[in-house]
Amino acid sequence: MLSIVGKSGSGKTHLILRLIEEIKKRGYSIAIVKHHAHGDFEIDKEGKDTWKFYNGGADAVMISSPVKQALIRRTDGEESVRNLYERYLRDYDIVITEGFNREGLPRIVIADSEEDLDYFSHGEIIAVISRNEISGFRTLSPDDVGEIADIIISFEKENR
Amino acid sequence: MLSIVGKSGSGKTHLILRLIEEIKKRGYSIAIVKHHAHGDFEIDKEGKDTWKFYNGGADAVMISSPVKQALIRRTDGEESVRNLYERYLRDYDIVITEGFNREGLPRIVIADSEEDLDYFSHGEIIAVISRNEISGFRTLSPDDVGEIADIIISFEKENR
Repeated sequence: MLSIVGKSGSGKTHLILRLIEEIKKRGYSIAIVKHHAHGDFEIDKEGKDTWKFYNGGADAVMISSPVKQALIRRTDGEESVRNLYERYLRDYDIVITEGFNREGLPRIVIADSEEDLDYFSHGEIIAVISRNEISGFRTLSPDDVGEIADIIISFEKENR
Repeated sequence: MLSIVGKSGSGKTHLILRLIEEIKKRGYSIAIVKHHAHGDFEIDKEGKDTWKFYNGGADAVMISSPVKQALIRRTDGEESVRNLYERYLRDYDIVITEGFNREGLPRIVIADSEEDLDYFSHGEIIAVISRNEISGFRTLSPDDVGEIADIIISFEKENR
């Protein structure tokens, strides 16, 4: 498991979408974990039974079909991303988290300049994604999706 | 864990919503599992990052906040409700499933008549919810929400 971090608007979501496509093409399973730091988030569609159950006060709601499962649950405070991994995501070949800067996971940082890196130095920086040269780090362009995927796959193989 | 079963339109969702309110009032935690028998279901909001990741091909997508977590994952065939329970729902005091008729869980059946019961006889019938008298079973009106909650809570206490 590793994080992709970067300032708001730096292109994390777009990069992750390109990585999903690339990594799936190579036959690996992949899970993405998004951090929503501030309060509640909206998910599900108003009026659906699952929406009604959750908004009616259920602590957890699941829906299961032959092709998809979903779980939505209330939590009492933030759970560490390590716990989420252990509980839900152990079976996937590749797990990428978006955000979770403070949790200290090894990370790929999207940065415009060296100054941007300070804020994201809570964990080992495996690579930097930038259109500018960042000294002291392995730097790739956001267009080098194949090479970024190589780095992620190698990292996951070495760290399981 | 027990099931609430009944024909389409029999009022399962409405009854479960009333039970959530009643059971929460008594201080228990509650999880609901809905069965979606036919193919895919829609969840999440188009355009959200989690929606993009899932529709972009991720095998699993999680989002975590201080107050809520959600997991959406692809599955290769239907998972048994017992497995779902073991993996996701062990921590809840009360777990009610809507549907899953064929999986043989003990159940409360919503029925208009004794003939309705045949289809739902894949597991022990704990009670029947009906506006008509159904001979041979403990029968309650759908308005007896307090008493139905009593039955469910007792069942869960005896079966943990």
